[in-house]
Amino acid sequence: MSTELGHTKPQRNGNDDGWGDCIPADMAPGFSGLEEREYRQGSRPGAGYIRRVRDRKAEFRYLGEGLLEATPEALAARSGFGKLNAAVKRVLIGPPLASSQAIHERLTKIKALAVLSSDALSSVAYATEETLLVLVAAGTAALSFGLPIAAAIVGLMIIVGFSYRQTIKAYPKGGGSYIVTKDNLGTLPGLLAGASLLIDYVLTVAVSVSAGVAAITSADQDLQPFTVGIGLFFVAFITIANLRGIRESGNIFAVPTYVFILSMYAMIVVGFFKLFTVGIHPVAEGQLPPAMESLTLFLILRAFASGCSAMTGVEAISDGVPAFKEPQAPNARTTLLWMVGILATMFAGITLLSHFLGILPEDPSVPGYETVLSLIAKDVFGVGPMYFLIQSATALILILAANTSFSDFPRLSYFLARDGFLPHQYGHRGERLAYSTGIITLGLLSAILMWVFDAQTDALIPLYAVGVFSAFTLSQSSMVKRWLTRKEPGWRTSWVINAIGAAATGLVLAVIIATKFLYGAWIVCLLIPVIIALFLTIHRHYSRVHEELEGDLPTSPAAVKHTIIVPVANLNRAAIQTLAYARSISPNVTAVHIAEDEEQAEAFRERWEAWGDKVPLVTIDSPYRSVVGPLLRYIDNIDRGERGDTITVILPEYVTAHWWENLLHSQTALRLKAALLFRPGTVVTSVPYHGARHRPAAGMAS
Amino acid sequence: MSTELGHTKPQRNGNDDGWGDCIPADMAPGFSGLEEREYRQGSRPGAGYIRRVRDRKAEFRYLGEGLLEATPEALAARSGFGKLNAAVKRVLIGPPLASSQAIHERLTKIKALAVLSSDALSSVAYATEETLLVLVAAGTAALSFGLPIAAAIVGLMIIVGFSYRQTIKAYPKGGGSYIVTKDNLGTLPGLLAGASLLIDYVLTVAVSVSAGVAAITSADQDLQPFTVGIGLFFVAFITIANLRGIRESGNIFAVPTYVFILSMYAMIVVGFFKLFTVGIHPVAEGQLPPAMESLTLFLILRAFASGCSAMTGVEAISDGVPAFKEPQAPNARTTLLWMVGILATMFAGITLLSHFLGILPEDPSVPGYETVLSLIAKDVFGVGPMYFLIQSATALILILAANTSFSDFPRLSYFLARDGFLPHQYGHRGERLAYSTGIITLGLLSAILMWVFDAQTDALIPLYAVGVFSAFTLSQSSMVKRWLTRKEPGWRTSWVINAIGAAATGLVLAVIIATKFLYGAWIVCLLIPVIIALFLTIHRHYSRVHEELEGDLPTSPAAVKHTIIVPVANLNRAAIQTLAYARSISPNVTAVHIAEDEEQAEAFRERWEAWGDKVPLVTIDSPYRSVVGPLLRYIDNIDRGERGDTITVILPEYVTAHWWENLLHSQTALRLKAALLFRPGTVVTSVPYHGARHRPAAGMAS
Repeated sequence: MSTELGHTKPQRNGNDDGWGDCIPADMAPGFSGLEEREYRQGSRPGAGYIRRVRDRKAEFRYLGEGLLEATPEALAARSGFGKLNAAVKRVLIGPPLASSQAIHERLTKIKALAVLSSDALSSVAYATEETLLVLVAAGTAALSFGLPIAAAIVGLMIIVGFSYRQTIKAYPKGGGSYIVTKDNLGTLPGLLAGASLLIDYVLTVAVSVSAGVAAITSADQDLQPFTVGIGLFFVAFITIANLRGIRESGNIFAVPTYVFILSMYAMIVVGFFKLFTVGIHPVAEGQLPPAMESLTLFLILRAFASGCSAMTGVEAISDGVPAFKEPQAPNARTTLLWMVGILATMFAGITLLSHFLGILPEDPSVPGYETVLSLIAKDVFGVGPMYFLIQSATALILILAANTSFSDFPRLSYFLARDGFLPHQYGHRGERLAYSTGIITLGLLSAILMWVFDAQTDALIPLYAVGVFSAFTLSQSSMVKRWLTRKEPGWRTSWVINAIGAAATGLVLAVIIATKFLYGAWIVCLLIPVIIALFLTIHRHYSRVHEELEGDLPTSPAAVKHTIIVPVANLNRAAIQTLAYARSISPNVTAVHIAEDEEQAEAFRERWEAWGDKVPLVTIDSPYRSVVGPLLRYIDNIDRGERGDTITVILPEYVTAHWWENLLHSQTALRLKAALLFRPGTVVTSVPYHGARHRPAAGMAS
Repeated sequence: MSTELGHTKPQRNGNDDGWGDCIPADMAPGFSGLEEREYRQGSRPGAGYIRRVRDRKAEFRYLGEGLLEATPEALAARSGFGKLNAAVKRVLIGPPLASSQAIHERLTKIKALAVLSSDALSSVAYATEETLLVLVAAGTAALSFGLPIAAAIVGLMIIVGFSYRQTIKAYPKGGGSYIVTKDNLGTLPGLLAGASLLIDYVLTVAVSVSAGVAAITSADQDLQPFTVGIGLFFVAFITIANLRGIRESGNIFAVPTYVFILSMYAMIVVGFFKLFTVGIHPVAEGQLPPAMESLTLFLILRAFASGCSAMTGVEAISDGVPAFKEPQAPNARTTLLWMVGILATMFAGITLLSHFLGILPEDPSVPGYETVLSLIAKDVFGVGPMYFLIQSATALILILAANTSFSDFPRLSYFLARDGFLPHQYGHRGERLAYSTGIITLGLLSAILMWVFDAQTDALIPLYAVGVFSAFTLSQSSMVKRWLTRKEPGWRTSWVINAIGAAATGLVLAVIIATKFLYGAWIVCLLIPVIIALFLTIHRHYSRVHEELEGDLPTSPAAVKHTIIVPVANLNRAAIQTLAYARSISPNVTAVHIAEDEEQAEAFRERWEAWGDKVPLVTIDSPYRSVVGPLLRYIDNIDRGERGDTITVILPEYVTAHWWENLLHSQTALRLKAALLFRPGTVVTSVPYHGARHRPAAGMAS
């Protein structure tokens, strides 16, 4: 700890700039570790003077002239309530972290795949089922359309995968859809991408956790009545874990992700092996719901749209390029290839297997519901250790997928806040260096969503994917624009790939909106413009504030002419202390007393004169016994008469020793302060008089 | 409207008393009716100056030098919320009343009897029934003990009546038990009387309203399920009516009271006439509950104790002597005689009638319950106009009885507040000149009580009368002490009468506590000491505050030495305006900036120096990103070093144009103010910077 005291600085001469004659001579506050020190700071007019600073608790470290650093000691809560609050926080989210403790882990490709692909890969847990659930409405025969639909989705995955490889090339520092779109297409399309993504992150949490809970309740049917409760518990758990600031540590993610990948492949391989050799006798049999609809092109497209939920999370790797080890962009591009390969083969394998096993999807709202994946796993392995391994790994990777939204949502809100489209609070890191406001917002919104939708995946799916495909389309289109504008080396190939990507995802977006609109997508279509309007309103506010506050800074302000009003309820020590304070600022002080009737007014004036009549007194007779109203009106009238003056209202304030004692005092000062806060151009000063502790404001007579 | 302007006052010379050289020359603020005027107020050092005051809306009336009167205009709400609030209040309780509008009606004996005796007389509606309800537990035969019990109660009424006649003689200005006891026996017994009475006033409301509702539901059985709701409606109605400030107008009270008295007498006379001539065939028949207890002395005493609820309200006339026309004391004494006579005869008549009619009291918790009075009325008059008149009059007088508590409770709280045993708020008259705090407190407490006890009279009765008889005993004993001490003319007779009264009521109090303790009186016995402890705690607080604030007032305070700290988050116009304000108070200003890291601290310092470095700057590097904690600790350390100075923290405060915009700003200034409020000896000043309206504090450069 370096402490350097007694610093001095050459005397400044600032007498000509309107700041008055009395510029402090010296300025070097220093704080010692444990003992009492002296140093020079500021000066009385005419003579530099010595100020004693006692930093007994080593709350500050002296870094240099006028530069201190607060130690953890400076954060310690002093009051009982503050200590309790700090203790609860410590248990829940841990001790605060210094800014310098931020860790930036660089990921190998193996770890990066685990961290960045859990969202995409986990969606195979529900994508096949959601396709089949739509088709089955037209009877079992319709289920065979699952195969061509899956083929189309796999084709789309490959297109999108290659398309994002181009984005990585162009944005090696990470190209989220908001940034890429804002960069190339402008602010409004950027906000459209931002709003779409915020909605989708909330839906990712709700859908993934709901699907994870379904994996658990499929394995243990007794838990089904507690579906919503278990889901909310997981959301709360992930929220708190993220407030603690879990790193996207490769190690935590690697195990469940690879266990999931391996167990899925094992299921697919063993399944097909058994199918073509010994044959499989289905263990569990889904109930066949009656055919409700006829097999139309619309139904097939709707099934396709539902299956597209498998695509969510594909953009994660291109967003997260900076997390890779060098060479970042090539590593990211390779990892993206791997991910798309794994995703496509797993999705295709599961869909084929469900087809050959003749799996019938079950109605999730009927008790005894099991997921399609659970039915396949039971058929392939029977109810044994492998089955439970698959269900556990599925539940775990789905929870991890929800967790990735807890990094994406706060990061995107941070970008939006930085650009002034969300409240500044989203840009501040909390005690644990996490963007707490974003995390809490996401936790609350997704919990509400799960609660409203009873934690049922298939009820949430129609809302899902609208946002993702909007972001896909905007992001690819931005890249098309970029290649055409910049014409960087190799732009022709990239341009073509991104154009195909943009066209394909745009088409799918149209299909999704058209087929899902009535089933819930309308909610998202309604929300997106509302959110954009909110972004713009917030931005307008910040711009106005910035314009008002920044810009040309005055260097030579006009001299302040004081008009001071001191409301006095009783002539006591608190009032006299306040009057003394007021008179030390300016001689132009008026005391104002509000009386209930003339008699009381006269009595007060007599006391005032007996005391010596040292300050001009105005008594206002308030026949309606109201204090705040007449006082405000009096100030208004004075203000109207004295346009040039700065009006300061100085209030004596009796501070009680215990909170409950406030109930014994009418809180006139508080109400007056609240009213004056909204009165433009009035300075309000509280001069506290502390009860019980017997310590008036230092240096004041009493 | 007298407006006298341009007043001047001889110049004062106050230069030698420590208040500085700059005593204002003149002081005569004047406010005109409608046009703009000029008048002299205060002065800049050296020269008197003219201040223009514009009182366009005639918000003030000029009464004399430095003396204004606020007109209703000064009360008018300015903000949207304030206007809404005012409109709701106006509809509910009416426009505010000026202090001078208080009306003090003087009552003739006829009217006084109506106003002051509704509580006492109305209790005959339930007193007989409560006696019988206890006795019937020992079987029908036990009911005949109702007669001797009633005889004893009538005897007690006469004793207490005569006893209170002595009190009236001694306290012609009104002798409530609290005042009489405090006067003669001391503070603690006075508080005991006060606490007892407060409890009993709450119970009077609950019991009377419950009994009133019972009168209604007896006549219309369909309303029984809504018993509690009807009761709460009446309590709310009476509360609002009292907040409006209904006068205890003789006319409003006279009609229902005399209708009740006359109809009771009619019922008694007609009842006995029919009984001894044509005979009466009971219309309704009570169900006989099985005999649960044996007829013990304890049971009889308990029945007596329940019957004593008839005595409540007897003290009202001696409390209300000042309301009588002259000669007050003799008129009051005569009225008291009348009241006791009417009460005793009505009670005796009803009890006798119920005996001869063989009325069986019904269980109030069983559906189809009817009051004893309702059963008697049906037997005597049949279900016809007279029956409904009796039930209506009974309900009405019971509501009026509850209403008297709404004058008694606030009046007693006013006395207790005046003596510092209850919060001062109880001593303030509201907009309608009523003691609103007391009225609202009584309304809430009695509503809670009715809700908890399901608005069942017999469930409340065991709690009742403990307070009344405590107050009786204390008040009579006080009178005994008084006669013995003062030995005024005629003291011997008075002494004997009061001694008999004190002995009798004391004995009854013992009986009441002993027999009702387990049935609910324990609650009251527990509450009374709790309330007294509360009184004493409050009194201790006020005494301490008084001691701290009053006493020797300093006339020559020491000069204030300023140390000013200005927390600056950004170097913008708001900050510069604040710094200019700070510098106008003292040159000893330090700006403090809290930075998240050294980099940010350095950047801020560079901006500061670019601006011109006009005020010494301390930057505090806060690695944990906390603002309030390090700032408070910094102030602590400065304070510890500078014992002699007054530390003022001046905060730039951006005031948004709309409330929701506050969500877009972290409320650091607010949190800092809250924290500083509890820091002894720091003056806190807010310099507002108003957004949108584009109006900085007047006279400030920006």
